[in-house]
Amino acid sequence: VTPEKVTVLCGGLGGSRLVDSLARAVGAENVTAIVNVGDDLEFLGLRVSPDLDTVLYTLAGLLDEERGWGVRDETYSVRATAESLGADTWFTLGDRDIGLHLVRTAALRAGDPLSTVTARLAEQLGVRVRLLPATDEALRTFVGTEAGELDFQTWFVRHRHADRVLGVEYRGEARPAPGVLAAIEDAEHVVIAPSNPFVSVGPILAVEGVRDALSARRVAAVSPIIGGEAVRGPLADMLESLGFERSARGVAEYYGDLVSAFVLDPADAAFAADIRGAVVAPAVMVDPRSRAEVGRAVLEALR
Amino acid sequence: VTPEKVTVLCGGLGGSRLVDSLARAVGAENVTAIVNVGDDLEFLGLRVSPDLDTVLYTLAGLLDEERGWGVRDETYSVRATAESLGADTWFTLGDRDIGLHLVRTAALRAGDPLSTVTARLAEQLGVRVRLLPATDEALRTFVGTEAGELDFQTWFVRHRHADRVLGVEYRGEARPAPGVLAAIEDAEHVVIAPSNPFVSVGPILAVEGVRDALSARRVAAVSPIIGGEAVRGPLADMLESLGFERSARGVAEYYGDLVSAFVLDPADAAFAADIRGAVVAPAVMVDPRSRAEVGRAVLEALR
Repeated sequence: VTPEKVTVLCGGLGGSRLVDSLARAVGAENVTAIVNVGDDLEFLGLRVSPDLDTVLYTLAGLLDEERGWGVRDETYSVRATAESLGADTWFTLGDRDIGLHLVRTAALRAGDPLSTVTARLAEQLGVRVRLLPATDEALRTFVGTEAGELDFQTWFVRHRHADRVLGVEYRGEARPAPGVLAAIEDAEHVVIAPSNPFVSVGPILAVEGVRDALSARRVAAVSPIIGGEAVRGPLADMLESLGFERSARGVAEYYGDLVSAFVLDPADAAFAADIRGAVVAPAVMVDPRSRAEVGRAVLEALR
Repeated sequence: VTPEKVTVLCGGLGGSRLVDSLARAVGAENVTAIVNVGDDLEFLGLRVSPDLDTVLYTLAGLLDEERGWGVRDETYSVRATAESLGADTWFTLGDRDIGLHLVRTAALRAGDPLSTVTARLAEQLGVRVRLLPATDEALRTFVGTEAGELDFQTWFVRHRHADRVLGVEYRGEARPAPGVLAAIEDAEHVVIAPSNPFVSVGPILAVEGVRDALSARRVAAVSPIIGGEAVRGPLADMLESLGFERSARGVAEYYGDLVSAFVLDPADAAFAADIRGAVVAPAVMVDPRSRAEVGRAVLEALR
């Protein structure tokens, strides 16, 4: 175990904010993020990795913070042209964002693994947090709904997560990307970010060896539910439809024995008595200026 | 032979202007353009077909006429991002242009031949001239220089055609795209556009069966050299370095027996006596407003 080192398992927005908070608290070079790739897609021939991109853009200071995805001050000329030529454009990609997707897609087609490409993109963007895709392989998340089974982005973006979720599946044999298991084994703190447990963290847990590596460590989770609602996204409804309580307690129940410390926002302090290893600390990180403080509070709570 | 039908063999800018001129003169639905693909390239993983695009953009009224390539009112966000991520950006692609390349590249990867994709793009852009790539296969132009052999775009764009051309080669077994030979056989007029004979028309002539089909027809060429200079591009220097006279007469010599009518601009009327089938007609088509007239004059000269 290396002192000061923190490894975070995360998805997109909530995850990226915790990673940013911890990087501000202990220094970017001490933080590793293991990022979900279960919702990656090919769109217009481009390989898009929404969660990796949200983390990259957040850490590089490029994220459109209001919208919660994509690059700020974005333009949409490519999309307008593609649409005028009859292309499907239900997944919105901005021009600057497409610049990154083109570079990544070309490198992947040339044979570089996603982990190598991601490290290079991070370096070019001046991001010093170590970003690891959970796997270099094609692990994909599918959602069972009353309308049938949908791939993640069709459910989430195309159908605006309107279909009630009855089940979640991860498909594809997925070995961990280089460095993933070691990052879990070697860090002083291993933290599950306040990301959606079913569709952001779940796919990471489905990667070969990750659950076992976590079982050997003390793992903390930061609640993605505050006051009965997700800071963003459909998690609260999913908890209900998948048979869990619509609360921080429902999330703690999902993780079960895997997690031995659980960070609750002060708004949910009442649940502390029912959750193993509950610690109360501020967990709202919407404002970048408050993040260093949240990062310090989370680490303090875990010590 | 179908009366009124005109088939044009062409490259990029000069070719697109003749196609536009003829379309304005006899109606777009009567014109077929057989377009060079020898300078196509993969760039940033995108399949770019510069000559097809110049013809498409010209006919759709989208061409940046001042620059002579690409889309007018273009933006460059994708390129700026790709460059900031370390990508090679020596071949300039604008955002709107990239929208088209993405749609084409995705369709090609899905297995559609270039001719099918081109017809669809033309339809979406409201272009009624029939556009045929000379071949659906990978015919590519290479240029021999004192600096060694270069693929066409490396010589033309990356090295700004600074290297003296000592030879030109077309590589790749290329069968004609569907409709190409019939378009030569059935048209009332077959015209070689005022495009570079070595690197724009030459690759079309290298497609299987094209020379034979042309030999059976009366073929006219429009001179790409006016007053000893190309309207645009490096043709005048190439004529010299490849052993031809730097003049319209040099071009006529290159085509030789293949061509039985040769349209000279009035500025070159002095060469008329030396060129088989010479006809003098205005051939400057830079201004779109003068094109219908040039088209009519060229057809009149060929009747």
